[in-house]
Amino acid sequence: NDVNLSIDNNDKVSRAHIRIGLKTDDYPFESPELQSVTENIWQIHNKYLITEIKSGLIIIDQHVAHERILFEEAKNAIEGNGFTSQTILFPQTVKFLPEEYEILIEITHYLEKIGFRFREFGENTIIIEGIPPDINWGNEHQIIREIIDQYISVKKIDPNFIDQIAAMYACKSAIKAGDSLKQSEIRNLIDRLFMTNHPYYCPHGRPIIINLSIDELDERFERH
Amino acid sequence: NDVNLSIDNNDKVSRAHIRIGLKTDDYPFESPELQSVTENIWQIHNKYLITEIKSGLIIIDQHVAHERILFEEAKNAIEGNGFTSQTILFPQTVKFLPEEYEILIEITHYLEKIGFRFREFGENTIIIEGIPPDINWGNEHQIIREIIDQYISVKKIDPNFIDQIAAMYACKSAIKAGDSLKQSEIRNLIDRLFMTNHPYYCPHGRPIIINLSIDELDERFERH
Ligand SMILES: [Zn+2]
Ligand SMILES: [Zn+2]
Ligand SMILES: [Zn+2]
Ligand SMILES: [Zn+2]
Repeated sequence: NDVNLSIDNNDKVSRAHIRIGLKTDDYPFESPELQSVTENIWQIHNKYLITEIKSGLIIIDQHVAHERILFEEAKNAIEGNGFTSQTILFPQTVKFLPEEYEILIEITHYLEKIGFRFREFGENTIIIEGIPPDINWGNEHQIIREIIDQYISVKKIDPNFIDQIAAMYACKSAIKAGDSLKQSEIRNLIDRLFMTNHPYYCPHGRPIIINLSIDELDERFERH
Repeated sequence: NDVNLSIDNNDKVSRAHIRIGLKTDDYPFESPELQSVTENIWQIHNKYLITEIKSGLIIIDQHVAHERILFEEAKNAIEGNGFTSQTILFPQTVKFLPEEYEILIEITHYLEKIGFRFREFGENTIIIEGIPPDINWGNEHQIIREIIDQYISVKKIDPNFIDQIAAMYACKSAIKAGDSLKQSEIRNLIDRLFMTNHPYYCPHGRPIIINLSIDELDERFERH
């Protein structure tokens, strides 16, 4: 396992870069839905990706696109062998309320599947030694609390709860609006997006891709 | 005067290219309204030009952009010294109805200002020897007829009639949707557009530029 050394923001971005770049060789360039007529995909305001397709333009929200990819990876990990945890250099101790701690024990299995590694360290207290891969939240304890809160509101472990863990992981570890991407990273992101089961909506239901058709443009330019 | 040799379609396009390229050195790159944050302007479907600005994206309709530029040039020419006519190699004879011919005589001044050159050639008949610059209609007689029809419907020479001649000239000689442009031509077109008095609407009132703001994109991506 890699060692997670730093927690500053620049590092977060470059880690997102590394993560996006990871699978360059895994997927051939195959995006039939995209039908891009150009090699160029442009990043707008370090937030949206835009490219020409046969029917006009498509615009992709880079954060939710990455979220969708990571969400499906996380679900597969939870339902399968789990993510490989990354060891953190300075383990954090976190103290919980007794009722929180009780739930923590109940859902430990899922936290471990997603890549957390921790052990008891006194009363209602744990020490976090490993976190999910390619993530640098800096506030691991907070994300664990959020997952506990989710569980409290749901009160049972069901597919929906697993979705929520996966979605939270995906949102926290995806590239953000504001992250500048290289052309190869953009291409890779889009290729992987179209390998997912639902490239058009993020796990929270927000659109990933919008179409700006030539018809719509013609309409706005009053070309009828 | 240049000699106008050919009338095929490819030539029309390359003439449009030449025309767009003509003034490269005349205008420095000054487009404050554009406030482009990038050097890149992309041509979409050989029809629309798209670039990133501080507030989002702007999309420009290349035909009407060029139309606006040529319209203002034509108005200045009609109200000033006129365009330099280009001599055509194979002069065309055109026969009119008597009532058309009468009007033709009445508006000859304006046709000459816009670059037509012709002389009487028998009863109600003219021979066209010169046409407006950088145009290759192939159907000069038809455009003259259209201008005559315009005049018949207006019945007087007023600023509105001059606008209509200029607008017709501009529409016929502007680059079309489907014409592929080089980066330098695109840049030049946009620079010249922003030198006009009304860069946002074409002489026929259609929008030249539409804004696709980041706010609108955020809205469509349900980022609120
Ligand atoms: Zn998110
Ligand atoms: Zn989402
Ligand atoms: Zn037109
Ligand atoms: Zn127009």
